[in-house]
Amino acid sequence: MAPAKLTNISELGEFALIDKLTQGIKLKQKNTVTGIGDDAAVLKSGNKKYELVSTDILIEGVHFDLTYTPLKHLGYKAAAVNFSDMAAMNGIPKQIVVGLAVSSKYSVEALEEVYWGIKKACETYNVDFIGGDTTSSPQGLFISVTVIGEASKDSIAYRKGAKEGDLLCVTGDLGAAYMGLLVLEKEKKAFQANPNIQPELAGKDYILQRQLKPEPRLDIIKELKKNSIVPGAMIDISDGLASEAMHLSKAGNVGVAIYEEKIPIDQVTFDTAEEFKIVPTTAALNGGEDYELLFTVSQKEYEKITKIKDIHIIGYITDISEGNRMITNANQVIELKAQGWDALK
Amino acid sequence: MAPAKLTNISELGEFALIDKLTQGIKLKQKNTVTGIGDDAAVLKSGNKKYELVSTDILIEGVHFDLTYTPLKHLGYKAAAVNFSDMAAMNGIPKQIVVGLAVSSKYSVEALEEVYWGIKKACETYNVDFIGGDTTSSPQGLFISVTVIGEASKDSIAYRKGAKEGDLLCVTGDLGAAYMGLLVLEKEKKAFQANPNIQPELAGKDYILQRQLKPEPRLDIIKELKKNSIVPGAMIDISDGLASEAMHLSKAGNVGVAIYEEKIPIDQVTFDTAEEFKIVPTTAALNGGEDYELLFTVSQKEYEKITKIKDIHIIGYITDISEGNRMITNANQVIELKAQGWDALK
Repeated sequence: MAPAKLTNISELGEFALIDKLTQGIKLKQKNTVTGIGDDAAVLKSGNKKYELVSTDILIEGVHFDLTYTPLKHLGYKAAAVNFSDMAAMNGIPKQIVVGLAVSSKYSVEALEEVYWGIKKACETYNVDFIGGDTTSSPQGLFISVTVIGEASKDSIAYRKGAKEGDLLCVTGDLGAAYMGLLVLEKEKKAFQANPNIQPELAGKDYILQRQLKPEPRLDIIKELKKNSIVPGAMIDISDGLASEAMHLSKAGNVGVAIYEEKIPIDQVTFDTAEEFKIVPTTAALNGGEDYELLFTVSQKEYEKITKIKDIHIIGYITDISEGNRMITNANQVIELKAQGWDALK
Repeated sequence: MAPAKLTNISELGEFALIDKLTQGIKLKQKNTVTGIGDDAAVLKSGNKKYELVSTDILIEGVHFDLTYTPLKHLGYKAAAVNFSDMAAMNGIPKQIVVGLAVSSKYSVEALEEVYWGIKKACETYNVDFIGGDTTSSPQGLFISVTVIGEASKDSIAYRKGAKEGDLLCVTGDLGAAYMGLLVLEKEKKAFQANPNIQPELAGKDYILQRQLKPEPRLDIIKELKKNSIVPGAMIDISDGLASEAMHLSKAGNVGVAIYEEKIPIDQVTFDTAEEFKIVPTTAALNGGEDYELLFTVSQKEYEKITKIKDIHIIGYITDISEGNRMITNANQVIELKAQGWDALK
């Protein structure tokens, strides 16, 4: 019998692969509210609260490059991006557990730096570091983080929930983390070609920090609560604005319209993109790792939302028949496509 | 300035390393009961319940060898050993999240087999598979599992809690998983030397299954509950009886006395150990991966405990001044030493 043809992982891509692997899963526990498919799973926890659970793995050579990533930053980022998953549900992180595997080339001191970063992120965001597993790997550094958080039952935000006419909002600015990555990659290549070269990082602090030490937007979660605003749908931007907008579209069965001119892009990001001959909007749409929040609110919240610092209305929600569109600066309407980062491609 | 001397990870060993890395961690969240240091962290969850959280990472080439580990079994085992951490707290598993990273050499079909095993373990033990992260690795297969479980406030069992005079009990039999591993390693070598050779696995089913498809002793947790027995201290046996007994000793500030003749060893384990010229008791003390439960109960439970199938009284708890001892079959008293498996050595 001829062997069956095997499917290469890269043929499917991350989202289709996960769909395939997780099909047929049935949830039976009474306290499970939702499982796979959002930024976090949701469990019942008392009368007014939900518990949130999310996990991420970070792998040397795939998610980070130790040539230019300080180990303290790596630890901090591993925790911070998981806290961002809690923010993405309109919740807050409360506890984390961390798995860490390293090859024998790592020293105890190197591991202490990684842990220092994790502990620092926990201190900053008031999260308890409650458990872990530390072991060896044949090669490279692996980190897995699982975060447990909390959201109010009446204000939890899922990817689904966007309604026609809703305003589409984004926090902070986009594309910066990706431009920071390009600068670091460029300097790495220059250094490899000539180890005596001085790195050209002047004026790039902002985008380097955005790449190396992202912060979860828990400040925004606090502001939304203070202003009694409950997002209809929400997600954090890890794979680029286009990819995340399309998640909201798919989950909510709606269309998304984004104005290019409204997409917030920092001046350093803009200038660096031009240096690299990249359209700045492309960096924002497809760059990834910004860990800003993308969410919808009903139009009646317009006044309240415009008063909150660092929230930008970039578009609106339409009927699904209108598709996902961007209205360009030249007033053209183009179809939104996700070319976000896919670790499996 | 001379560079500071760096410490090699293997100089410290797993437990000392974890102590070093996790020092200075403060717990601030009101619902955190205990953090690092037991089989699971403990969170408050309602009036009568605690929530349990535990995480484990499994790495190709360190924790498993795909030459002889079927992928379905690997998935099952990754989940099962985490469920065992819940049993070790006298609790039950309820949800898991799984992180999986694979190199591009893996096919989608191979990943489906791993997931099949995880899903099968979840079905068997009534656990909801609620989340995950799937990504690529530069090399090898990497699995992280975080399990969330539940224990009653009034019957949760920690590593601490053993009292002088308590009976020391173990479930099932010990050393089998290790002997299964040795058989598989031997057959691997024989196959590498001569690929036409037929594997000699006849009669070894029991120990192979113990290695490849361990089961968490949740049946024992149910029996203890049914009989209203609350263990004083409990741990699961992942690194060998000696290592785990010493954890109970250290955590409870007590001594442990074990009768060699009472240590349960299956006949196949015994015979295979002799084939490999290993003292069967040594396999039980230091072999690891049995995932049986080691626990203490007060003497007044003697009658009740002896009536439960598959629980064996193997010794008793003493004052700490008496140390950790084994009374051998020849009636000699020897000091108990842990030579359990250490992934960092």
